[in-house]
Amino acid sequence: MENLEHAPEILESAGLKYLGGKLLVLDQRLLPHNEAWVHCQSPDEMCHIIKTLQVRGAPLIGIAAALALADYALNGAGEEDIVSAATKLLAARPTAVNLKLAMDRLVFKATDLRPDTLWQKAVALFREDEILCERMSALGATLVEDGDNLLTHCNTGSLVTAGIGTALGVIKKAWQQGKKIHVYVDETRPLLQGARLTTWELENAGIPYTLICDAMAATLMRQGKINRVFLGADRIALNGDFANKIGTYSVAVAANHHNVPFYVVAPYTTVDFDCASGEHIPIEERDMEEVKGFASVARESDSLTWAPHQARAWNPAFDVTPVDLVTGIVLDKGVFTRAALKQGALGRLRLEMP
Amino acid sequence: MENLEHAPEILESAGLKYLGGKLLVLDQRLLPHNEAWVHCQSPDEMCHIIKTLQVRGAPLIGIAAALALADYALNGAGEEDIVSAATKLLAARPTAVNLKLAMDRLVFKATDLRPDTLWQKAVALFREDEILCERMSALGATLVEDGDNLLTHCNTGSLVTAGIGTALGVIKKAWQQGKKIHVYVDETRPLLQGARLTTWELENAGIPYTLICDAMAATLMRQGKINRVFLGADRIALNGDFANKIGTYSVAVAANHHNVPFYVVAPYTTVDFDCASGEHIPIEERDMEEVKGFASVARESDSLTWAPHQARAWNPAFDVTPVDLVTGIVLDKGVFTRAALKQGALGRLRLEMP
Repeated sequence: MENLEHAPEILESAGLKYLGGKLLVLDQRLLPHNEAWVHCQSPDEMCHIIKTLQVRGAPLIGIAAALALADYALNGAGEEDIVSAATKLLAARPTAVNLKLAMDRLVFKATDLRPDTLWQKAVALFREDEILCERMSALGATLVEDGDNLLTHCNTGSLVTAGIGTALGVIKKAWQQGKKIHVYVDETRPLLQGARLTTWELENAGIPYTLICDAMAATLMRQGKINRVFLGADRIALNGDFANKIGTYSVAVAANHHNVPFYVVAPYTTVDFDCASGEHIPIEERDMEEVKGFASVARESDSLTWAPHQARAWNPAFDVTPVDLVTGIVLDKGVFTRAALKQGALGRLRLEMP
Repeated sequence: MENLEHAPEILESAGLKYLGGKLLVLDQRLLPHNEAWVHCQSPDEMCHIIKTLQVRGAPLIGIAAALALADYALNGAGEEDIVSAATKLLAARPTAVNLKLAMDRLVFKATDLRPDTLWQKAVALFREDEILCERMSALGATLVEDGDNLLTHCNTGSLVTAGIGTALGVIKKAWQQGKKIHVYVDETRPLLQGARLTTWELENAGIPYTLICDAMAATLMRQGKINRVFLGADRIALNGDFANKIGTYSVAVAANHHNVPFYVVAPYTTVDFDCASGEHIPIEERDMEEVKGFASVARESDSLTWAPHQARAWNPAFDVTPVDLVTGIVLDKGVFTRAALKQGALGRLRLEMP
């Protein structure tokens, strides 16, 4: 009852819900074959949910962590518990900066830790992200031409935001505007977010697509079959360098070689205004079993190790692409060209921030 | 008995044996977890074995097809049956040219189709390949420096030749020479020949390696962690363009961007002297299920489809890399630099051929 008084608002996105005082997350590990919602009952559970990639994607993990924290406060947690929980949540994944922004807003750079205030701030993050998605999508869609073949990497749609998505939001918006497009989807090894999740979103949206292995993208470019690349970011540095899902840099190098326009789409909440350049972005390394086979954390019986059991593997979850390979970054606040980025456009944006 | 009289010779390589009048092939689909040998009893069976990739790799499929044909003749097949079987074998896989060379030598450009002659020619192909491997490996190893970190793609070792291998032969030879090297192994989606087979060969040889996803290679290059790339070829055109396992072109573009030397290693039997340039090389497209998941043709229970069942996928088995991205091609007959290739070195080699 306490919960319902404080949380009359209903939040609902493709991957996250707050309904009847319950925080629910879609277990993205089970997609596309199963859609199961998990009731998250504590910040500790949310840490586990984020670490195991049940919830993933830079914007969504910030929002999900904020809601878990607010829910914790609404359920009676004291200020010390909240600070402790925020510290744990912040450490759940190191690369995406949205998580840090969310924890800063609610706790570390806040003075008012009352439950109502935390709740309002968490809801504001959700509502703001919906609007940011709309703005990015509309701005990015102006770059898409009728008849385009687009390439995307990883998953950047409704599953990772409160709204339509970032890069995949651009693609959906262009389709909604009636542009006849076709999307090549990088499968995105090792965890196959492209093969499992982007395909699922494109199926649901009715947008034509073709799934490829990551290393096929360069060959498509050589054949003139990719008009533009749109993908997301987990952290953007002040100089325009950015971190994104491993494999992004490989796409950027190939796009550069073939003069294919290469766009990054992200909300301003993904810009790290304290980070001068890409070399300062921490890169999470994950378990090598993910590379040695298909590590289904959802159903053990679906896990396969096709490499020798004693094999060593390297598994960085992200890579950094330098601004020199970027055609433009589409933020909610505008499209920033490589030239503008190199002339310090993001630094000036910081000065305009509230 | 007939068989034993005509086939006293014992042939034995890592993936192929002729023992006691029986042609045996290692089912490469089951590696690295199971080593099972299949007794191939007819050219039709060999067609199936080649199409299903139980036997794979440009040099080996030529040799295996030749031995199947000779075995067929030794067992009493008539000349018409032999020509018909050779026609079917030739069509089993379109891209690798070694298969064509083998069928030409034994049948299509031959006048003598007697069983003994076919057998001698098939054995000669096997024995010649062992020697070609030794020459390529020795020549290529001179390009490897002590302390090198090497990158390779797909599998090019003992499993695909009668000898030490092509690109992986170079790597093994350098190791045998006492050079302290470390190998990054591209997993090579979709069929994971790197993750399953190259790792297995490197384990067996005791050579240090690290398995990576294909799209991580560019990131390693950016970090300065790759000194040289060695990989194989399925067909080399006269101008130095070449076809190889899908993903090769992506590696070539990344190597070019980072000024990492990029070497192709193949026997002269992989050069198509009738093919002017890469655009004339036919590229095999395979079943899209291979891209939509892990298609274990060996054990149905190990197959997984992680993409939506209705998803469309593109699955070219090979790509073409232009000579402009090649540092050099290591043939058994010498190391041909890009400059030499562009000045028609392979055309002059043709003139020297018997």
